[in-house]
Amino acid sequence: MTGDTITAVQYGIGPIGQRVVEVAAERGIEFVGAIDIDPEKVGEDLGTVADLSESLGVTVTDDPDEALGPDPDVVFHTTISAIDSIGRQVEAAVAAGADVVSTTEELAYPWYHHPDAAADLDELANEHGATVLGTGINPGFAMDTFPAVLTAPCQTVDSVAVTRVQDAGVRRGPLQAKVGAGLSVERWEREIATKAGHVGLPESIAMLAGALGWELDDIEASIEPVVAETPVETGHASVASGEAAGIHQVGTGIVGGEPAIELDLRMYVGAESPRDRVRISGTPDLEVTVDGGFHGDVTTPAVVVNAVPRVLEAEAGLATMIDLPTPRYTHLR
Amino acid sequence: MTGDTITAVQYGIGPIGQRVVEVAAERGIEFVGAIDIDPEKVGEDLGTVADLSESLGVTVTDDPDEALGPDPDVVFHTTISAIDSIGRQVEAAVAAGADVVSTTEELAYPWYHHPDAAADLDELANEHGATVLGTGINPGFAMDTFPAVLTAPCQTVDSVAVTRVQDAGVRRGPLQAKVGAGLSVERWEREIATKAGHVGLPESIAMLAGALGWELDDIEASIEPVVAETPVETGHASVASGEAAGIHQVGTGIVGGEPAIELDLRMYVGAESPRDRVRISGTPDLEVTVDGGFHGDVTTPAVVVNAVPRVLEAEAGLATMIDLPTPRYTHLR
Repeated sequence: MTGDTITAVQYGIGPIGQRVVEVAAERGIEFVGAIDIDPEKVGEDLGTVADLSESLGVTVTDDPDEALGPDPDVVFHTTISAIDSIGRQVEAAVAAGADVVSTTEELAYPWYHHPDAAADLDELANEHGATVLGTGINPGFAMDTFPAVLTAPCQTVDSVAVTRVQDAGVRRGPLQAKVGAGLSVERWEREIATKAGHVGLPESIAMLAGALGWELDDIEASIEPVVAETPVETGHASVASGEAAGIHQVGTGIVGGEPAIELDLRMYVGAESPRDRVRISGTPDLEVTVDGGFHGDVTTPAVVVNAVPRVLEAEAGLATMIDLPTPRYTHLR
Repeated sequence: MTGDTITAVQYGIGPIGQRVVEVAAERGIEFVGAIDIDPEKVGEDLGTVADLSESLGVTVTDDPDEALGPDPDVVFHTTISAIDSIGRQVEAAVAAGADVVSTTEELAYPWYHHPDAAADLDELANEHGATVLGTGINPGFAMDTFPAVLTAPCQTVDSVAVTRVQDAGVRRGPLQAKVGAGLSVERWEREIATKAGHVGLPESIAMLAGALGWELDDIEASIEPVVAETPVETGHASVASGEAAGIHQVGTGIVGGEPAIELDLRMYVGAESPRDRVRISGTPDLEVTVDGGFHGDVTTPAVVVNAVPRVLEAEAGLATMIDLPTPRYTHLR
């Protein structure tokens, strides 16, 4: 830190990275470097690329070593979803001694699906005294950390069911494209279903099982289109009746031969009653509803920036939202 | 621990202590001692005193040293609300090297109202390598930890309002007496209002402010009766129209001259729509509702027992629910 100021490097300045920059800068975090491979962004000021009203005095580069030169306290890593593809990016940050908060979905809980990559990253982080955390609203909070917290008042827990309904129509354009809004069902099956839609349900299931101390037999996953019953127009997509409005994904965690965790995610344009709802069967039963749901584009950068104080104070290694102290907003200045 | 089994001593076997024993025993925690000053309980088996169907092979004593002799991993401390009065009880447990989970309301966050007692206890716990945690459903979760967690997805937080409405009619008898159900309003004002009703709202406000990094100017508190509009009969109390049905307490935390935290607690017999509701004003606004609310008598022992694994792994000292890793149910065997 520069005095009391936390210094940061932004690694990846897409729609989520832009918002992380905005929220972090607003909270008094000082950017000292920025990395992106897009030639249109390289050479520009980070404030400009992040669509802020002011310059941040930091020039975007495609050279990680250059950006990481000032030894930032933390690197915000917001590039892609797959842990196998981001190894060198996070490694470079860790090797520079920086803590890392990443929105790479598979990093939120890599211990189940990618145990070797997780162990390697944990070892590297330990070597360099760095902490690495994968988080965001989902995976990272809505369908894993949040329901885990809601089991704290339970004497017994038989099963956990989470329903997340997001109106993709109020989300960013790439998200609407990601869920296939406006495609024919046939094309949706070909282009969206095979790409597995939202990445992170299996990670959330594994994180939740790990949090509760449950051993998973298996994780099952399904994906199908939500078909529009009436036409929907958003600023980004035009959906006719009978076309795909978005995705409906269900992930199920099997414990002791029974479906013990069920995560039901629907992201589609024109969604009615968007919400997050957690139902716990146990002693007592609980039903908890977040009216309107946690808006993904608003809340992901918040979860990321709010994790910073805990990541900076944590022991070295690959952390999860469950290991760290109680997640929360923290006033930074 | 005996092998993998966590060993415990129960300190105080009133209505809450009984339930802690039941939940802990059910979860495989092995009791090795039990303390109570009630002559009717001393000499009896803990299982009998806790109303379990089986003996636990542990005889209740009024001698803390005797009960703590077997060096338990953890002491469940469930006696009284005031930190000034429980010093020696918790000190004895800490001196025996045990970690302590206590339902003493003022221990949930003593740093604001009792900073000297908190510092002394922290020092003693550090000396003996012990961790001390005050928790329960309220204070400890419903009106502090839970709303704190709900700020994790917020870019900014302007204010937090929590409403907790409990139907005292389904709670334990002493709780119904504590809220003054069935007293005339005049007698309620004399006997209940002056005893301040539920203990813990100021602690919850201070904990929440501490969690968010807010500096409190002041804490304001009010208490008034809920007056029955129709007669209510419970197994423990008989309330006529116009008599007190219970309490309505409001605690307000002032930050920067503004009411930033408002905790509104109503516990009365015949309550309609019992619930816990958290409203956050910020970016984004959030409204989260727990249908029916967290039932105090069921959830307090759960919060206490669920804290054990984190308390056992924590560094020595006086901990809070906010410092420890994400609270949750954890399967113990």
